[in-house]
Amino acid sequence: MSNIKKKSVLVIGGGSVGTIAALNLQAGGLASVTLVLRSNYNVVNDNGFDIESCDHGILKGWKPSVVRNTVPNLVEENLEPYDYILLSTKNIPDIPPTIVDLVKPALPSTNTHTTLVLIQNGLNIEKPFLQSHPKTVVLSGVSLIGSAEPSPGKIVQDDRDRLLIGAFANSNLDTTAATEDLAREFVEIYAKGGKTDCVFSPNVLHDRWRKLVYNACLNPICAITGLDTGRIRLADGALAGLVRPAMLEIVEAAKKSAGVQLGDDVVDFMIEVDELQLYLSPSMLADVRKGNFIEFENLLGEPLREGQKAGVAMPTLQVLYNIAKAVQWRTKEQRGLVQIPPKKKKGE
Amino acid sequence: MSNIKKKSVLVIGGGSVGTIAALNLQAGGLASVTLVLRSNYNVVNDNGFDIESCDHGILKGWKPSVVRNTVPNLVEENLEPYDYILLSTKNIPDIPPTIVDLVKPALPSTNTHTTLVLIQNGLNIEKPFLQSHPKTVVLSGVSLIGSAEPSPGKIVQDDRDRLLIGAFANSNLDTTAATEDLAREFVEIYAKGGKTDCVFSPNVLHDRWRKLVYNACLNPICAITGLDTGRIRLADGALAGLVRPAMLEIVEAAKKSAGVQLGDDVVDFMIEVDELQLYLSPSMLADVRKGNFIEFENLLGEPLREGQKAGVAMPTLQVLYNIAKAVQWRTKEQRGLVQIPPKKKKGE
Repeated sequence: MSNIKKKSVLVIGGGSVGTIAALNLQAGGLASVTLVLRSNYNVVNDNGFDIESCDHGILKGWKPSVVRNTVPNLVEENLEPYDYILLSTKNIPDIPPTIVDLVKPALPSTNTHTTLVLIQNGLNIEKPFLQSHPKTVVLSGVSLIGSAEPSPGKIVQDDRDRLLIGAFANSNLDTTAATEDLAREFVEIYAKGGKTDCVFSPNVLHDRWRKLVYNACLNPICAITGLDTGRIRLADGALAGLVRPAMLEIVEAAKKSAGVQLGDDVVDFMIEVDELQLYLSPSMLADVRKGNFIEFENLLGEPLREGQKAGVAMPTLQVLYNIAKAVQWRTKEQRGLVQIPPKKKKGE
Repeated sequence: MSNIKKKSVLVIGGGSVGTIAALNLQAGGLASVTLVLRSNYNVVNDNGFDIESCDHGILKGWKPSVVRNTVPNLVEENLEPYDYILLSTKNIPDIPPTIVDLVKPALPSTNTHTTLVLIQNGLNIEKPFLQSHPKTVVLSGVSLIGSAEPSPGKIVQDDRDRLLIGAFANSNLDTTAATEDLAREFVEIYAKGGKTDCVFSPNVLHDRWRKLVYNACLNPICAITGLDTGRIRLADGALAGLVRPAMLEIVEAAKKSAGVQLGDDVVDFMIEVDELQLYLSPSMLADVRKGNFIEFENLLGEPLREGQKAGVAMPTLQVLYNIAKAVQWRTKEQRGLVQIPPKKKKGE
């Protein structure tokens, strides 16, 4: 059926998004997947993943072709470059290491062979790679999956894997046609197993801004107030006072800064996209509760800066951003990344 | 020395502010104090207060004239009206009972004898009493004390008791002179013991707006970010992005809505009023940590509404207010004051 030869794919980040991606890639038979794990490496290396998936059913002890606990070092390990590297880690540019540093051992700065696929949220995430790897094709993956890893190696996917793949603009490359071909090829490899809704998208910016209506607004608002997406709809004045104004600022920023028209219904759609009575915790709320760093720079900082550059008034997101920054600092201090003067007693 | 006959004073609220107030009133010999306690009643009734005070030294087992665990009911208990009722509870109008309901048994709505003293923070706190008790003189007490109750009945005062007493405007009463005389009398009774810095203030609104520069800004910002007043000065961008803009909005609101000129130095003064290395938690942060309700309506909501009514742009405080409201709702739900639809599983 397909003319694609089997591709080597390195997936970095085996959480709930990366693991389902690895599963889809492997299921289609067109990819050999190496999956890089961190916190769940030992569990998965010993026993494989324990997966409950609405797309794939129940899988016990599943593993991709290769499981590792480090990013491969092509030079030191004398490895061929991968055809694709898929990044599905969190993306927290304000906390080292950056994703560029993370991927470097497997992706030389002069690379022209490997296609990089960023299945990560937020805006301008490709920009650091355009600097560090100017000739690398970078694809955008916007995932609308509902999945979680309740314990290490246990993946629960309770909402269909929907993945929009497109090509980030890159003025260092000669044609966009070639990059779009690579995006289409990746879609074919990913969708081949037939259990996922992975499609090519010609408008990466539209996909990203649309998801930001949720991720720049509901996500930090839930994290800051400590309320999940059900409770935020019930809490006194939270929708009218916080969520709607923030979302409208994103809609305006999308229009003014990127020419992206999101449509009138997007605000209500995103408010209601999580069923109320599921009381789901968006990623930042889950991260705050676990004492983890939050992805606020790409999800909130970048759209805020783009919107403000385009002259959009964004008073709600401005305050949310500064609060998120303070919350991030709190985690930095808790993790020992910043030092503060010692505590004194009154009069000392 | 004094021409004042001994006065009966009912102090409602025996936390760290009310207890030091009771102590000062009793110490001067011009007042007989009945103190109404709630959570610490049993401890104090059995063993008295254990007080460490920079003004009064160490006192073991101290009690005022009378300690009670209910607000006296004048009718049912056949009691004479008090000369003064001093309210030093938290003031949370959005959570029942309101302070008007709390004080009612000891203060008939037709009262003209008893003077009410509100040692509570925020704006417009006298307004409900102007409705419910139109002929009652209401005094304003702005306390700048540093004190805490680390465990029930244990009071630690580590910063001088400074109390500004003035009269709230009340158009139902014939003269302001008489109400100011009562304020001066209260100051004399309170200050008589000589261990406190209690003074008459002719400008209640100035005192209240000035304290709001701290209480409408630093207080909720610390509560929302989870950072104390030391850490908020160290955290990335929190002063420039949150604290200063919020404080400048209050300074402008004070000017436009009340004609109160706070002076250029008030912002820096309030940022630095708590010594950094003490890492003090303002009241709202302490309350959030304990799962208590926060006093956000009088401290943040009222100045916001007054400022906006006067045409002041208050984008920072608007967002902080809505977040505080959501945080309050969270506590309401945790305390069972609001019911939410039951949790479902996906597909149910």
